[in-house]
Amino acid sequence: MIATPHESAPLTPVTVLGLGPMGRALASAFLNARQPVTVWNRTPGKAGDLPDRGAVVVDSVQAAVRAGEVIIVCLIDYDAVRATLEDSRADWTNRRLINLTSGEPAQARQMSQWASARGIDYLDGAILTPTPTIGTPAAAVLLSGSHDVYESVRETMNAVGSTVTHLGDDPGQASAYEVALLDIFATSVNGIVHAFALASAEGIEPERFAALATGIGGLLPEMITRFAQQIRADHYPGDRSTIASAASGITHVINTATSHGIDAAMLTAAKAVIDRAVADGYGSEGLARLTTVLHKEATGTGTA
Amino acid sequence: MIATPHESAPLTPVTVLGLGPMGRALASAFLNARQPVTVWNRTPGKAGDLPDRGAVVVDSVQAAVRAGEVIIVCLIDYDAVRATLEDSRADWTNRRLINLTSGEPAQARQMSQWASARGIDYLDGAILTPTPTIGTPAAAVLLSGSHDVYESVRETMNAVGSTVTHLGDDPGQASAYEVALLDIFATSVNGIVHAFALASAEGIEPERFAALATGIGGLLPEMITRFAQQIRADHYPGDRSTIASAASGITHVINTATSHGIDAAMLTAAKAVIDRAVADGYGSEGLARLTTVLHKEATGTGTA
Ligand SMILES: NC(=O)c1ccc[n+]([C@@H]2O[C@H](COP(=O)([O-])OP(=O)(O)OC[C@H]3O[C@@H](n4cnc5c(N)ncnc54)[C@H](OP(=O)(O)O)[C@@H]3O)[C@@H](O)[C@H]2O)c1
Ligand SMILES: NC(=O)c1ccc[n+]([C@@H]2O[C@H](COP(=O)([O-])OP(=O)(O)OC[C@H]3O[C@@H](n4cnc5c(N)ncnc54)[C@H](OP(=O)(O)O)[C@@H]3O)[C@@H](O)[C@H]2O)c1
Repeated sequence: MIATPHESAPLTPVTVLGLGPMGRALASAFLNARQPVTVWNRTPGKAGDLPDRGAVVVDSVQAAVRAGEVIIVCLIDYDAVRATLEDSRADWTNRRLINLTSGEPAQARQMSQWASARGIDYLDGAILTPTPTIGTPAAAVLLSGSHDVYESVRETMNAVGSTVTHLGDDPGQASAYEVALLDIFATSVNGIVHAFALASAEGIEPERFAALATGIGGLLPEMITRFAQQIRADHYPGDRSTIASAASGITHVINTATSHGIDAAMLTAAKAVIDRAVADGYGSEGLARLTTVLHKEATGTGTA
Repeated sequence: MIATPHESAPLTPVTVLGLGPMGRALASAFLNARQPVTVWNRTPGKAGDLPDRGAVVVDSVQAAVRAGEVIIVCLIDYDAVRATLEDSRADWTNRRLINLTSGEPAQARQMSQWASARGIDYLDGAILTPTPTIGTPAAAVLLSGSHDVYESVRETMNAVGSTVTHLGDDPGQASAYEVALLDIFATSVNGIVHAFALASAEGIEPERFAALATGIGGLLPEMITRFAQQIRADHYPGDRSTIASAASGITHVINTATSHGIDAAMLTAAKAVIDRAVADGYGSEGLARLTTVLHKEATGTGTA
């Protein structure tokens, strides 16, 4: 029987190294796509219902690499990836390694060199969406590195989600996007927990606060798009709201937090950048102007 | 002729003190609702097209208060409001003062006392949405203070937007919500400009970055709602992602920013809270747990 592309694709054996929340979600998505799945985790007992659903659990990286053709590694950081792979005596012949661990662009490039020194086909990747999206159309995954390697895993990786994007040959690009997105995500999440603490100190119930706060999510996409246009044009109109007004607003948050004894260091750090912009004469401009204030720091031409 | 409520409502003369972007947007919305509008601004020449559209521009607060029945004040901060109103010899008989200036709950309560000592009917308010929403269904405005005063301005305030919510008698509540929402907004916006700076340093075009970054907005509402439930239950499962993982992620952002010479102080401050949570033994819990770490600070029972 001649296998159709549809039938042959699910047969690629996949290995997942790492069974944290994301590793488990990835293994689950490959199982749902009917790919043969082998899993390994440093600490045993993390496979949950994966074995019942058909995954093979092995207790060495060597065995795990032997069982798969596409090897996904998804651990806490690159040090863990390096330690895990260097310890093993795995034979990588005809294997492709896809590292979906979060990290820095420089780490991704180093890891790619590590792989290439060992003749291992390597892609570096970044997962942009949380575990419940994995295996659904809502998942967003970036891959960077060799185009040929990407083509050879493309169909297999469809199991993870419909938006798996290849960014080109530089293995650091996926991490670069990830780090910049994580920048927004980490600051927003820390702002959200801080706001809940503040609301609670002001006697506001978490659900009542959440009902209003969810509206913030709707404001950000338009703002991000507008900021991109302003940065491109290098023109930052203050017609909607100004940096001076933001300085005043953030001061209210800092004072209220401080009056309740809540840590305000993150806000104080944000205010320092805003204050520098005002000192540089940008008080009447829009907030996207702050990008150039941070840049001045970067190029050492700042006045403050 | 007996006026129907619909006919009588638009006749309430409204005064707007302050013609920054938000004051102008408010005056424009009252004009669109066909209310007689008088405007004043400290610095002349800020009325834009409002006079052409029927607004009367006056050059003293005294004249402005005389012309309106509902007096909206929307200045940069409460100090400006206090200075503006104390300087004037306005007669407040049969006037209601609605202060939509951003500020702190304590300032709102003080301002309410200031008004009540002078026999002025007062509401304190907070505008939660940007200028383009004003006068549209997308506007969200909170008011707090006397219920009777609220009832007497309710119809007039409909011109501002369909979601004008009265929070009750404590004049500080609108500011309390506003400050907590501003907490999320200010941190997110500062994260966004920082991310654009980082992306640019990594050679990523602003539009390409924006196309991916807009997705963040979609993640926050669900997360805010989930955090509220976890805070209510005082239970912070780490099944989706953990504080330890966030510590690792934020470190990547800090290292990448630092490698490009971009200010990372806001992220470093966020990481300090995360590190304190890990030191307190919460590394395997979810991010909403951070609210209690901030609270520990507040109540002085923290271990770190
Ligand atoms: N969860 C999400 O929503 C999400 C979203 C996007 C990206 N990511 C990224 O995906 C990666 C994995 O995240 P995660 O949520 O699954 O959990 P995680 O807590 O970041 O990582 C846990 C995994 O790392 C392993 N590990 C830690 N130190 C190790 C070491 N020294 N040697 C070998 N293995 C080690 C753990 O094994 P043990 O069980 O033995 O400790 C476990 O398998 C991270 O880089 C994360 O940033 C996650
Ligand atoms: N813009 C928004 O999207 C937005 C959204 C929500 C809430 N708000 C809040 O609305 C309020 C007004 O904001 P805005 O955007 O219109 O601009 P703003 O820059 O915050 O305030 C500008 C207004 O304040 C006046 N002002 C400043 N110092 C003064 C003083 N000492 N005495 C008298 N007037 C003084 C200015 O008069 P001059 O022209 O004479 O300087 C101008 O009328 C703020 O509290 C802001 O936080 C704004």
